[in-house]
Amino acid sequence: MIDLYTWQTPNGEKPVLMLEECGLDYDLHMIDISAGEQKTPDFLAINPNGKIPAIVDIDGGERHAVFESGAILIYLAEKTGKFLPASGPARYEALQWTFFQVGGTGPMLGQWHHFRNAAPEKIPYAVDRYKNESLRLLGVLDAHLKDREWLAGDYSIADIINFGWVRSGLSGLRDDGASQLAALMAWTERVGSRPAVKRAIDRLDQAKRAKTG
Amino acid sequence: MIDLYTWQTPNGEKPVLMLEECGLDYDLHMIDISAGEQKTPDFLAINPNGKIPAIVDIDGGERHAVFESGAILIYLAEKTGKFLPASGPARYEALQWTFFQVGGTGPMLGQWHHFRNAAPEKIPYAVDRYKNESLRLLGVLDAHLKDREWLAGDYSIADIINFGWVRSGLSGLRDDGASQLAALMAWTERVGSRPAVKRAIDRLDQAKRAKTG
Repeated sequence: MIDLYTWQTPNGEKPVLMLEECGLDYDLHMIDISAGEQKTPDFLAINPNGKIPAIVDIDGGERHAVFESGAILIYLAEKTGKFLPASGPARYEALQWTFFQVGGTGPMLGQWHHFRNAAPEKIPYAVDRYKNESLRLLGVLDAHLKDREWLAGDYSIADIINFGWVRSGLSGLRDDGASQLAALMAWTERVGSRPAVKRAIDRLDQAKRAKTG
Repeated sequence: MIDLYTWQTPNGEKPVLMLEECGLDYDLHMIDISAGEQKTPDFLAINPNGKIPAIVDIDGGERHAVFESGAILIYLAEKTGKFLPASGPARYEALQWTFFQVGGTGPMLGQWHHFRNAAPEKIPYAVDRYKNESLRLLGVLDAHLKDREWLAGDYSIADIINFGWVRSGLSGLRDDGASQLAALMAWTERVGSRPAVKRAIDRLDQAKRAKTG
């Protein structure tokens, strides 16, 4: 059994999607980041960076405690042999679009959200900076998807890891130009209509309601 | 022969370190980002995101064009069987600290540099935000290294990918508290004293001088 520690955020939903896609059993432990539960000693023992998600899996007598969503997805892909080719160009195409998400849309849309919604002062320069960079990154994905069904050959961890932040970006930046990214919107619908993705989103939603009431 | 397209930056030096550590032959193509060369059609054909570094390698008849430094390091590790265990907990420890860099110190120190040095207006809130988050991330690495020689078992791609931004952060934030991160400073010296790392830094330095005069 895999223990997953997470919350309902674009980063937190990634391993839930992957676990559902792989058909693995897992216990879902909700770490309420609005209550600071990701900074408790118990959680910091799993991830000293104090960020969700993280997993603990005992497999073949080996204990795998893994944090960082990208590392978790590679771990699960290699555990199951699914959603990441074992070798060849398609493997590294999937990995490059995985890292593109972790180093690109994740932090840039995260900063946009911060300056738009959370920062104590209104700083137009910062809002525009992250809005523009986020739109540029979403545009790179849109152009790449114009003649492709998935980001890297078959459906892979690249699609799974990019989904949440793209969905968030397309929604939040709809009136800023994101509504013109037709190929990216169609891809988001393709990912979102997968039964495993629907199950993941529902399970996370229910678990959050059960926790916060 | 591997073609490497890069520039002298914390991201750009990562694959040079790895290629030197692996003892692989490579042609170094300098992409002057101050002149916008990463946005030319030729380079965008390799990386549509318009960012260095990227590699092109023909191996066993397969063409591997890989962008994103994290994906490049995994590609080279799996090509050579070096600096990333093939399985077991140590593999995913190395991968989690690799993603920690790509999603953490890279973007946060990058934003700190922007607001400190490049932004057209002085915005204390943004400077402090990225200074504090960068110091927090460097502190996570420092605490982790207090009883370890390397970030994840043996010397690995986790050390190689973290080196450049840590060095930049320790230097830039020296007077803001980074000078107290003794374990991280000692690790930086251990990495920096490796012959392959010295060769990489020298070769990149010479190539930049040859290009810019």
